[in-house]
Amino acid sequence: MPHEQITLYTAKVCPYAQRTEIALAEVGAPFKRYEIDLGNKPEWYAPKVNPASKVPAIAYGGPDVSPENPSPESTKLAESLILVEFIGDLYPSSGIVPVDPVQRAQARFFIEVVSTKFGPNFMKFASGNPEGTHAVLLAGVDAIQDLLPDGVKYAVNDQYTIADIALTPFWARLNVMVQKGIGAYKDEERKSFLKALEDPKYAKFNGYVQRLLARQSFKSTFHEDVVAEIFTKRFGLAK
Amino acid sequence: MPHEQITLYTAKVCPYAQRTEIALAEVGAPFKRYEIDLGNKPEWYAPKVNPASKVPAIAYGGPDVSPENPSPESTKLAESLILVEFIGDLYPSSGIVPVDPVQRAQARFFIEVVSTKFGPNFMKFASGNPEGTHAVLLAGVDAIQDLLPDGVKYAVNDQYTIADIALTPFWARLNVMVQKGIGAYKDEERKSFLKALEDPKYAKFNGYVQRLLARQSFKSTFHEDVVAEIFTKRFGLAK
Repeated sequence: MPHEQITLYTAKVCPYAQRTEIALAEVGAPFKRYEIDLGNKPEWYAPKVNPASKVPAIAYGGPDVSPENPSPESTKLAESLILVEFIGDLYPSSGIVPVDPVQRAQARFFIEVVSTKFGPNFMKFASGNPEGTHAVLLAGVDAIQDLLPDGVKYAVNDQYTIADIALTPFWARLNVMVQKGIGAYKDEERKSFLKALEDPKYAKFNGYVQRLLARQSFKSTFHEDVVAEIFTKRFGLAK
Repeated sequence: MPHEQITLYTAKVCPYAQRTEIALAEVGAPFKRYEIDLGNKPEWYAPKVNPASKVPAIAYGGPDVSPENPSPESTKLAESLILVEFIGDLYPSSGIVPVDPVQRAQARFFIEVVSTKFGPNFMKFASGNPEGTHAVLLAGVDAIQDLLPDGVKYAVNDQYTIADIALTPFWARLNVMVQKGIGAYKDEERKSFLKALEDPKYAKFNGYVQRLLARQSFKSTFHEDVVAEIFTKRFGLAK
C-alpha cells in the first residue's frame, strides 16, 4: 500500500501524544513532527487541525505543506488510541495490531483496563486527590498484572502491540514522578508504593514494565527532562 | 477462516448487549444466545464468564457445551465495543469494520463521540439528573450530526459499520422513552427535545437515525416491550 504524508502534532510532555510517537517509531513510518506548546497553543491549531485543541493529532495525505499551514485537503484524525491503531493499520506487517481476532480483542481489553483502572488512578495520585493513595495505584497495577499471560514478554504475546503502547508512556511518567518525588501526593504514599512493588508477587509486572521501558521506540521518544520540569511546575513536589 | 463456536451472554434490555447482537446479525454468524437476568444473575456467571459480571460477554471456541456450563477451554471476551470489532474481524467480508484505515479511524472516532457526548447525556436525561436537560441531549445530537458526511447513508459511508452499531441501540431506547414518556425527567424537557428535533437543521440527523432503526439487524434484535417495561420500573414516568 502506498503511504501518504503524515504530519504529527504532538508534545513531549504528553503521554497520549507519546503513544502515537511510539507507534510511528515501531512501524518505521516517515512523518513530520510538530511540537505544540500546550501552554500557548497556536491560533490555527483548533480551527485547522483538531477542534478539541488537544494533542496528538495527525494530518494525513493531501499536499506537502508546512505543518503551520495545514491543507484542507488532508484528513485530520485525533485521539491517541485511534491514531495508534490507524498507524498499525497502515503498516499491518509491523504486527503492532495483532492479526488474530482473539488476540486483537485481548489487546483492546488490556487497553480498556489501562484506560479505566490505571490512567485515572495515576492522575488522582499525581494531582494529590485524597483518593489517590498508594493503594489505589496498586489496584491499577493489580488489574494489569492479572491480565498478563505467563511466559510471554508483552501484554498479549511476545510481540509488542497496541496494548503495550497504551501503557508505556503512562508508566514511564509515573516512574519519573515516584523516583524524583514529583507530584502533589504525600511522600509516605510514594514510599509505600515503591515498597509494595518490591513484593515478589509483583515480579511478573516488574519484569513486564522493565521490558516496556527498554524498548527503543520508547527511549527515542521520551524526554525525561521535559516531563520532570513540566510535571514539577504542574503538580509540585511531594510533601 | 474456519469459525469456532460463539456463545453470547446477553440481555434484551441492555443497549450494550444489543450492539453485539446487531453485529452478529450483520455478519450472519451462527451463535448460541443465553439471556442473563440482570436482576438475578446466575452464580456461575462472574466466576466462569465475566468477572465484571456485566453483559455482553462471549465464550469463543472450546468444546460444544451448554451455556450454563461454560468450558474453561473457551476464550472469554467482554466489553461491547471490543466484541463488535471482534465479530467484524472474524467476518471481514461483512464490511462492518471498514477496510480502509482512514475510514476505520473515522468510524472509531464516531464511536468515541457516541461514548463521550451522547451516551452519558442519555443516561443523565433518563435518570432525571438535574444536568440531563433537553439542551444537553441536543448537544449530543449536534456532536453526532457534525460528524455525519453529506450524501451518504451512514456514519462513515454507505456501508453500515461498527460506528452505526455503537449508536443504534442507544438511539432506539431514547426513542422509546421520549415517545412513551418513560424516564425520570420533566415532561416539558421531553416535549422541548421532540420539538427541537423537528427543526429542519436536524434533517440530516433525522434521516440518519431513521435508517438506523429501519435496519433488519436492529429490528430482529430489539424487544421494545421488554425495554419499555424494565425502563419504566427503573426510571418511572415523566412528571
